[in-house]
Amino acid sequence: SSPAGTIRATLFPGDGIGPEIAESVKQVFTAAEVPIEWEEHFVGTEVDPRTQSFLTWESLESVRRNGIGLKGPMATPIGKGHRSLNLTLRKELGLFANVRPCYSIPGYKTRYDDVNLVTIRENTEGEYSGLEHEVVRGVVESLKVITRQASLRVAEYAFHYAKTHGRERVSAIHKANIMRKTDGLFLKCCREVAEKFPEITYEEVIIDNCCMMLVKNPALFDVLVMPNLYGDIISDLCAGLIGGLGITPSINIGEGGLALAEAVHGSAPDIAGKNLANPTALLLSAVTMLQHLNLTNKADRIHNAVLKTIAEGKHRTADLGGKATTTDFTNAVCNNL
Amino acid sequence: SSPAGTIRATLFPGDGIGPEIAESVKQVFTAAEVPIEWEEHFVGTEVDPRTQSFLTWESLESVRRNGIGLKGPMATPIGKGHRSLNLTLRKELGLFANVRPCYSIPGYKTRYDDVNLVTIRENTEGEYSGLEHEVVRGVVESLKVITRQASLRVAEYAFHYAKTHGRERVSAIHKANIMRKTDGLFLKCCREVAEKFPEITYEEVIIDNCCMMLVKNPALFDVLVMPNLYGDIISDLCAGLIGGLGITPSINIGEGGLALAEAVHGSAPDIAGKNLANPTALLLSAVTMLQHLNLTNKADRIHNAVLKTIAEGKHRTADLGGKATTTDFTNAVCNNL
Ligand SMILES: CC(C)[C@H](C(=O)O)[C@@H](O)C(=O)O
Ligand SMILES: CC(C)[C@H](C(=O)O)[C@@H](O)C(=O)O
Repeated sequence: SSPAGTIRATLFPGDGIGPEIAESVKQVFTAAEVPIEWEEHFVGTEVDPRTQSFLTWESLESVRRNGIGLKGPMATPIGKGHRSLNLTLRKELGLFANVRPCYSIPGYKTRYDDVNLVTIRENTEGEYSGLEHEVVRGVVESLKVITRQASLRVAEYAFHYAKTHGRERVSAIHKANIMRKTDGLFLKCCREVAEKFPEITYEEVIIDNCCMMLVKNPALFDVLVMPNLYGDIISDLCAGLIGGLGITPSINIGEGGLALAEAVHGSAPDIAGKNLANPTALLLSAVTMLQHLNLTNKADRIHNAVLKTIAEGKHRTADLGGKATTTDFTNAVCNNL
Repeated sequence: SSPAGTIRATLFPGDGIGPEIAESVKQVFTAAEVPIEWEEHFVGTEVDPRTQSFLTWESLESVRRNGIGLKGPMATPIGKGHRSLNLTLRKELGLFANVRPCYSIPGYKTRYDDVNLVTIRENTEGEYSGLEHEVVRGVVESLKVITRQASLRVAEYAFHYAKTHGRERVSAIHKANIMRKTDGLFLKCCREVAEKFPEITYEEVIIDNCCMMLVKNPALFDVLVMPNLYGDIISDLCAGLIGGLGITPSINIGEGGLALAEAVHGSAPDIAGKNLANPTALLLSAVTMLQHLNLTNKADRIHNAVLKTIAEGKHRTADLGGKATTTDFTNAVCNNL
């Protein structure tokens, strides 16, 4: 059991650059005196039959027990007979929503400086049902499944998030003009929930139009909620607007407050172990984890220190054209706390 | 029958601003002495039982007979018991590919000046099957259907297009890591066709990653080919990069050389009949029609005149913050021929 007043959280450093950027988070959390005690779990080297993946049963149990975790990048080993690590985590932990706050970061120059939105993706069903078959030779079908239960759940979360984060508008993204029944059900659920939140403006935007508007004028959007595949697409599109997955935080939400924050970028094996990785995405994901735990002061402190370090531009890692090491950047964040 | 040497083409002026911008095309074609004789057809005022839509059977017959057509915006009248005009055209005419050349237009300022790509969308199947049902209360399914025949057909068209338009690379966009069978079949077909075009580089890009790369660096892309819904999304995203649907040309391809070029923007009823509409998208779509007919000189002449008129910036229509009328803009294009 953890010392009085501390929170136990699971940490998956992950593969490749994972351990280095996880080290950065640990260092910053210590410097900021965050009352968290890490319980580290590593991706296994063999398939665990209980999870059908390289994730061990014990590591999943750890997240279930602690209710909170942080995850670095994991490269799903190639080969057959096991499930993707990301999909296993979503499924086994019931992580029904993927939430990505997406905002322009001063000092990280892109074509956009006016992004400030949050994408909320349904994470369990839709086009990810895994139900596919060949009907006759050369004719293949896959099933998209939308349920009232999962749609209501993610819509409730989105409106609740908007309300508790000072957001004003929720846009439901869909293609119900074509998929009248599936996306139609999703919209129906969003409308039902919207009625319970009269203080939040609700709108519906067709996905093709949404993508066009996002690249023309992302400032039009606030909170976006959508079925799985649209969320997959739009959350990466939005990450692109602000500079990429290397600076985009992400957190997955399950039932009963369970949450797993994660850096969604790759494990970058080419630079692994060289102290070159930019820890920003994992640091900002750790911030969303603190927000989720209502450790708001600590969250703000770390968030501001990361943003200040980037804005100063004195400690740019290689991905930003600089020469700073992961350690340099981390030390700078600690100094800016 | 048409005068010797002239080509008969079907023209659907469409609704709202349609007739005005169609007038602009007719005027420019006359000035450029394009050997085309228009056969005009209007959207009906009642549902034609043979088409189940407001499109008349005669108008579809006209495109079938002429093999070539141009279409302004059509607003599908609201109400039940009839099919969308766009979907009816695609289905009845077997328009299996939607092709959109998408390039930055000097003088039309956006955040991007480095776009020069072509999206090729499979237009007949995939997520647009229309097959949906409620399995039990609160559980709805829709079917995505991918066939070898339609995938090969659009892939052949994409590679053929790349080869005949001096393009170097074809990227197949997919989500086969999740939809292994459907998108997997699409990729398999693309690979088969790629082997017949060794001079064209072939690559595969996952749709979420593709959207992120498009907003970060669209210059990475050349020709993109993809299933229906991804094409719907990405073609609008790309239109957004260059300024929107108001300047994006589009052409739909059927069997045996049949083609229907179209402006894909809306019918803008608010400004209809006021001589305020920007005819650029329909003019540039008409250019793709001429290219398709191998009237390359005429196509180049009109294309250059439209681009010169926009670059000069003396005749900006209201959508570009100017005061020029549709007629002013059209006259300027004619003068620039
Ligand atoms: C790796 C892949 C299965 C995953 C997805 O499609 O959900 C990824 O793109 C993501 O967004 O986390
Ligand atoms: C109006 C709609 C049915 C159509 C589509 O989804 O194909 C439109 O978005 C398009 O791209 O032409």
